[in-house]
Amino acid sequence: MSIKKVLIANRGEIAVRIARACQELGIKAVAIYSEADQYSLHVKKADEAHCISRDPLSGYLNPHHVVNLAVETGCDALHPGYGFLSENHELASVCRDRGIQFIGPAAEVIRSMGDKTEARTTAINSGVPVTPGSEGNLRDVEDAVVQANRIGYPVMLKATSGGGGRGIRRCDNDQEMRQNYERVISEATKAFGSAEVFLEKCIVNPRHIEVQILADRQGNAVHLYERDCSIQRRNQKLIELAPSPQLSEEQREYIGDLAVRVAKGCGYENAGTVEFLLDDTGDFYFMEMNTRVQVEHTISEAITGIDIVKAQIRIAAGEPLPVDQSQIRYRGFAAQFRINAEDPKNGFLPSFGRITRYYSAGGPGVRTDAAMYTGYEIPPYYDSMCAKLIVWAMTWQELLERSRRALNDMGIYGVKTTIPYYQQILQHPDFGAANFNTSFVENHPELLDYSTKSRPESIATAIAAAIAAQAGL
Amino acid sequence: MSIKKVLIANRGEIAVRIARACQELGIKAVAIYSEADQYSLHVKKADEAHCISRDPLSGYLNPHHVVNLAVETGCDALHPGYGFLSENHELASVCRDRGIQFIGPAAEVIRSMGDKTEARTTAINSGVPVTPGSEGNLRDVEDAVVQANRIGYPVMLKATSGGGGRGIRRCDNDQEMRQNYERVISEATKAFGSAEVFLEKCIVNPRHIEVQILADRQGNAVHLYERDCSIQRRNQKLIELAPSPQLSEEQREYIGDLAVRVAKGCGYENAGTVEFLLDDTGDFYFMEMNTRVQVEHTISEAITGIDIVKAQIRIAAGEPLPVDQSQIRYRGFAAQFRINAEDPKNGFLPSFGRITRYYSAGGPGVRTDAAMYTGYEIPPYYDSMCAKLIVWAMTWQELLERSRRALNDMGIYGVKTTIPYYQQILQHPDFGAANFNTSFVENHPELLDYSTKSRPESIATAIAAAIAAQAGL
Repeated sequence: MSIKKVLIANRGEIAVRIARACQELGIKAVAIYSEADQYSLHVKKADEAHCISRDPLSGYLNPHHVVNLAVETGCDALHPGYGFLSENHELASVCRDRGIQFIGPAAEVIRSMGDKTEARTTAINSGVPVTPGSEGNLRDVEDAVVQANRIGYPVMLKATSGGGGRGIRRCDNDQEMRQNYERVISEATKAFGSAEVFLEKCIVNPRHIEVQILADRQGNAVHLYERDCSIQRRNQKLIELAPSPQLSEEQREYIGDLAVRVAKGCGYENAGTVEFLLDDTGDFYFMEMNTRVQVEHTISEAITGIDIVKAQIRIAAGEPLPVDQSQIRYRGFAAQFRINAEDPKNGFLPSFGRITRYYSAGGPGVRTDAAMYTGYEIPPYYDSMCAKLIVWAMTWQELLERSRRALNDMGIYGVKTTIPYYQQILQHPDFGAANFNTSFVENHPELLDYSTKSRPESIATAIAAAIAAQAGL
Repeated sequence: MSIKKVLIANRGEIAVRIARACQELGIKAVAIYSEADQYSLHVKKADEAHCISRDPLSGYLNPHHVVNLAVETGCDALHPGYGFLSENHELASVCRDRGIQFIGPAAEVIRSMGDKTEARTTAINSGVPVTPGSEGNLRDVEDAVVQANRIGYPVMLKATSGGGGRGIRRCDNDQEMRQNYERVISEATKAFGSAEVFLEKCIVNPRHIEVQILADRQGNAVHLYERDCSIQRRNQKLIELAPSPQLSEEQREYIGDLAVRVAKGCGYENAGTVEFLLDDTGDFYFMEMNTRVQVEHTISEAITGIDIVKAQIRIAAGEPLPVDQSQIRYRGFAAQFRINAEDPKNGFLPSFGRITRYYSAGGPGVRTDAAMYTGYEIPPYYDSMCAKLIVWAMTWQELLERSRRALNDMGIYGVKTTIPYYQQILQHPDFGAANFNTSFVENHPELLDYSTKSRPESIATAIAAAIAAQAGL
């Protein structure tokens, strides 16, 4: 292994995940943290940890600062995780300029696939179907209206540099297009620093199906089957499944092949995800490619047995993929539940605060990737996801049963979480019958009508947790 | 599912394990506990819990008491777990008499396979090789000396009703036989209520290889491959592996077939384990059959994907096995580390006390079956095993790397554990090269020569843990 020391340019559970991969490979892991994150679990799990900023965000968001720290601490590689700078091509460029191996694709590929119109072009050139759209950025609102009428409403108006569900609006007619155009431009400018927007046909009732790929420097590319991420709320994934219980084996093989074509078409290296929409008639449309490890990579690991983060590091170290496509099999079904510190009954409002008690789920088929512990105070500055519960089972039916049990097993006290809401989803017959699309959450507001057994925490427990947090770590 | 409510006649991690299986099957689980166990995790995980004795042991050991409670609480089945009454055929009889489905084989099979000489006869009649031995119980010490000379020293003098490594002595010559004879008789009488003893040839440098089997009421029997439990200390297993890294595929198939023959030969129903010794020349010898779920069933689950405890319940409910032998495949390698509250550097002396902080291991390929939590006080009356760490990986090499990482991941403060000793074993080249037998631990006393990074707990943390334990649960 040519890589000896890795700077983890991230925080929370994904930073813990990367530190674990490094440890298995015998590589030193260096954590960075803001002052607000001094008690974060990723600080404890790394071999070294350095405070990178007094304020909560700037340290995680400045490519020059993180690469400087990598150089200063003697790292030879950097893992960006997901979110923050993970799809910022400048980070990859600065790494290259400073002699740090970026664990991800080349800067040019990140830039190109991050540009939605270039990514579409790559897909088309690779023979992969894309949704009918504006074939380039829009000139102005009049151009938008003309093109929308050509494509046919409903259409999605999207920021070219967007991602993570932001900078997207659905328009059902000319009037809505005129209303939304300036809003999306404004959102895009603020969030992504670019005013470029484009149109795509809106696929009604789509399933979100994405394929995990791995590609090495030697030109080999394979897929690790697909994930079904249709259970979303406002474009934020909540529950992910692998493989999709909604696909036939034929569809599975077809879409895996499409994803590998996209990866080869853009000269991809490292782990990546090709996202598709599947419509009611069984047609797939390329949506975008994410040029980083994803939150839900865990379920592809569960069904294939391949450690994706270790594969990322090995690829970055120049090693060829150890297996070809025919050697990659999947077994059973896996689900990932994003355990967010949110109150679903209160509009999914974040519920930050002190974890007074935490019991991890355990037993067969259960994996937890958590960034919390008894006494930990979830800081209010970051994403509300504080743990991932990953469940594997031999059959879809067993997955449903085991997921219910595992969610029940997990005990988080002191903050509200999405756990009881997921229990509701698991009980819905359409979910059980593997019949759902991206509107499932929106179409079933009745699932929010549950009562939680509130077990009031005693003052003594709260004090104990507070003392433990101060004294610990 | 004809079973609706199960009494769990056990405690600690296996009681938690059984409660989880019940929950997945939609079955109510009833826990029993002694006063010393009132804060035990299994009490929390069950749907109902009943205090069965004020003293630590009598409640767990009286077949009539536990079956009475099963009847009184409306249970229709009883799971015995391992240890305690699990191989007491009277419990199975009392269950049958009171109309409670015993989750295990018939009382007569438990009795017969629990009798070492009858079990040998069953194996011989099934065409399964056994170690040369006395072919029946010994009459007296003179008979023992004559038979030992016929078999050839070294021999093992064993209690016919023994198990769990007790009531066994090795004799290398006539003098040792004369010295040990009365001792084993006395141990056997005290521990098992029977003075019957027999002889077996001592296999030098054996590997302990055991095969997990499942058999249904319809007469189907399958194996779930083998486990290598050679890493033992004084006949107590410490680390178990599945499949054995020391077997060829041919040996694997051969021994699986032998185990199924034993199960069929004794009319076995439910989950069981057939134990063999493998000598230096590659010969296998039947040792005994355990007529219950085993501590290390978890690693067979990890490689085959089959939930053994759920299979036990389904079989007891009269369901046929859902798969035949050709559908049972194994993938990768798994290890189980028994996390005992013991101080390896101090003769493995139990280290009972309060867990001041507990961090579960997590991440890919890691399962924990724990009976502890932050603030839990391990009572001194029971087995010192308080958690099991189960690690799965695609290859033997990855298993070694991931095991090191996962052991490092697990944080238990307040008591000493076997974790640092296991780290030593993992680093030994013979273990890494899959070259070890049951004398490995004894032959490598130098592995106990390690220093632990002692992180002293602050008084505040200890107070916090104590408050949390009182206030919690």
